[in-house]
Amino acid sequence: MADVFLEKSGPIAHLVLNSPETRNALSLSVIHSLMEHLEALAGDVDVRVVILRGEGPAFCAGHNLKDMVADGADIHTYRELFSTCSQMMLKIHTLPQPVIAQVHGIATAAGCQLVAACDLAVAETEAQFATPGVKIGLFCSTPMVPLVRLIGRRRALEMLMTGRFVSAQEALEWGLVNRVVPKDQLAKAAMELAEEIAQFSRYTLAFGKDAFYRQVDLDETAAYSFAKEAIAINCLHRDAQEGMRAFVEKRAPVWRHTASGVTS
Amino acid sequence: MADVFLEKSGPIAHLVLNSPETRNALSLSVIHSLMEHLEALAGDVDVRVVILRGEGPAFCAGHNLKDMVADGADIHTYRELFSTCSQMMLKIHTLPQPVIAQVHGIATAAGCQLVAACDLAVAETEAQFATPGVKIGLFCSTPMVPLVRLIGRRRALEMLMTGRFVSAQEALEWGLVNRVVPKDQLAKAAMELAEEIAQFSRYTLAFGKDAFYRQVDLDETAAYSFAKEAIAINCLHRDAQEGMRAFVEKRAPVWRHTASGVTS
Amino acid sequence: MADVFLEKSGPIAHLVLNSPETRNALSLSVIHSLMEHLEALAGDVDVRVVILRGEGPAFCAGHNLKDMVADGADIHTYRELFSTCSQMMLKIHTLPQPVIAQVHGIATAAGCQLVAACDLAVAETEAQFATPGVKIGLFCSTPMVPLVRLIGRRRALEMLMTGRFVSAQEALEWGLVNRVVPKDQLAKAAMELAEEIAQFSRYTLAFGKDAFYRQVDLDETAAYSFAKEAIAINCLHRDAQEGMRAFVEKRAPVWRHTASGVTS
Repeated sequence: MADVFLEKSGPIAHLVLNSPETRNALSLSVIHSLMEHLEALAGDVDVRVVILRGEGPAFCAGHNLKDMVADGADIHTYRELFSTCSQMMLKIHTLPQPVIAQVHGIATAAGCQLVAACDLAVAETEAQFATPGVKIGLFCSTPMVPLVRLIGRRRALEMLMTGRFVSAQEALEWGLVNRVVPKDQLAKAAMELAEEIAQFSRYTLAFGKDAFYRQVDLDETAAYSFAKEAIAINCLHRDAQEGMRAFVEKRAPVWRHTASGVTS
Repeated sequence: MADVFLEKSGPIAHLVLNSPETRNALSLSVIHSLMEHLEALAGDVDVRVVILRGEGPAFCAGHNLKDMVADGADIHTYRELFSTCSQMMLKIHTLPQPVIAQVHGIATAAGCQLVAACDLAVAETEAQFATPGVKIGLFCSTPMVPLVRLIGRRRALEMLMTGRFVSAQEALEWGLVNRVVPKDQLAKAAMELAEEIAQFSRYTLAFGKDAFYRQVDLDETAAYSFAKEAIAINCLHRDAQEGMRAFVEKRAPVWRHTASGVTS
Repeated sequence: MADVFLEKSGPIAHLVLNSPETRNALSLSVIHSLMEHLEALAGDVDVRVVILRGEGPAFCAGHNLKDMVADGADIHTYRELFSTCSQMMLKIHTLPQPVIAQVHGIATAAGCQLVAACDLAVAETEAQFATPGVKIGLFCSTPMVPLVRLIGRRRALEMLMTGRFVSAQEALEWGLVNRVVPKDQLAKAAMELAEEIAQFSRYTLAFGKDAFYRQVDLDETAAYSFAKEAIAINCLHRDAQEGMRAFVEKRAPVWRHTASGVTS
């Protein structure tokens, strides 16, 4: 079976890490598979929301250390691994569909980064998060990029400098995950969140997600300059016109189920 | 009665949204009224703190959708609305006086943005917050600008992508509001916070608020470059000299009640 | 006795503020002493972690107001004080070793800034934090720089505009401190955290801390561009190679105890 596979359930796609024997380690091959699936999903107008999960005992335990100390591993090996992995993480932000991480077991190092790189995250009560690279001499310098942007400096530095496990409850309080549920309700909770979002206009979700990441790192004035034009353009779209009219007329809106793009 | 009015109570001004029938919708006309009041307040040396609240069942339910789907509404209509609204939101940051949002009922879309744009916020226990534009095909791209800068990416994306209501308690935990009190104590709690601040030097509050927003989006080193010069200039001001001496001499300081400006 | 002194306990150094009579006020002389100690520590390869604490009833009550209103104090006096103090705060970020603030009693104004400027912080249950400059006409414009970058805009503005004391519990919930313990366990808790970190590679901690502060203020794409190269370089270091191999071979790693620097 493939190291990453896709399952569709109506407008929801499950993107599944499938290397249980390595706790879904992000080898270069797995990263490439994820990128290919993300590229295909970007053009799939039937998919409204993506749930990312892992088979086996853990969500994802980071990179595969065996590969990283193999004979011949050199700066080029490491550059390729981390450059490709960073591209994959950023591709989640540019995917038109919202991506929900469904986290069970552990999410460590690049696995914790993967949770942080998703738009939303649901975890089971026993899930644990860590950036433990410091314990093996390899500071989690790429995982910290999305992590500190979610949980702030104080908590990120504690995770990075101690490598300690953070519980699902802490992850919830710190803004690393959105919801925590018992393990037997995890798949259902992720699905419910996905279905809640999947009822909305594909165009609007894609347009809004793109706008979100475009403005989030700007200073506030620059963010407004961008956002005020974005929302004006959004207003012209057929789905916004339909949505506003439906609201005023107290009826349910009917979306045009097509790929994103201004089609006023 | 005007769609926005001002009430003064000693050094505290109440800026009041007064369109209960539209749940204080931010029509272009209301936004212009708000801007005029903010411009007048900026020059009013007797006002130390502004409390922003709404009449009727809700704080503010965002823009008026009826206007937005009126015949003839086009890109120019939308640009003018969102450009003016963004200017108004930023004007709250440049107002010399601290602005406290006093939130009851719902604060949705641009209404939620208005809460986020204020310097401080007090809410009643039953207050609810949402950026529900996604439900009508219009992603809350301008509301997200100040919102994500208060509550972070994870929670902002959940609000934006689901449109769900967030309780006052969640808003408190996420840093969207500073205090939550029972409804019958809301006005009193906002007033107490305002009075606590109103006892301080007008110059110092204006100077400090301006410095806060000037440095908050800079990188830390640039922020220090700015802030170290700002505080040195603040030291020279009569109110700082008076305040420091009063502290050393164990007496209450006496402020010069004038408009802002360095008057050493 | 010196106004700042150093105590070593194996790989842990205690940097101690020692002006109990002024509640460890950060006079220009104390700031210079701190900078000299930080410069010496940077080159001390035996020290893995620094704990910063204060003698007497308080951690640190900020600058010395008596000095600031002394005859002859002018813009040059203030510029020198705040410029030197800002340099000292930033030097904590560039120190190769992690710095843990051990906070008892009060940490106010520049004392609160000092807590925020450390990498990690442990506080006792009764510790209190404030930026009360507004009460004496002098807005805490330099303290706000690291403070808002830890606790966010809403809470920072409340602290700055009201000057109120924030409890250790609030400081924990807001991300200003990492742990809160009863007073009689404070030194032990700081030491345990330090010892947990001190077991890791000096090179990795120094490299990772430097990388953290270099990327934290960049936009996410720029942060990845930097971080992916940083972690590739980290991989080549002897301690990372040893750490990864030790992990794969299921044994404890043995670090090279030398100063930082790539020594592949």
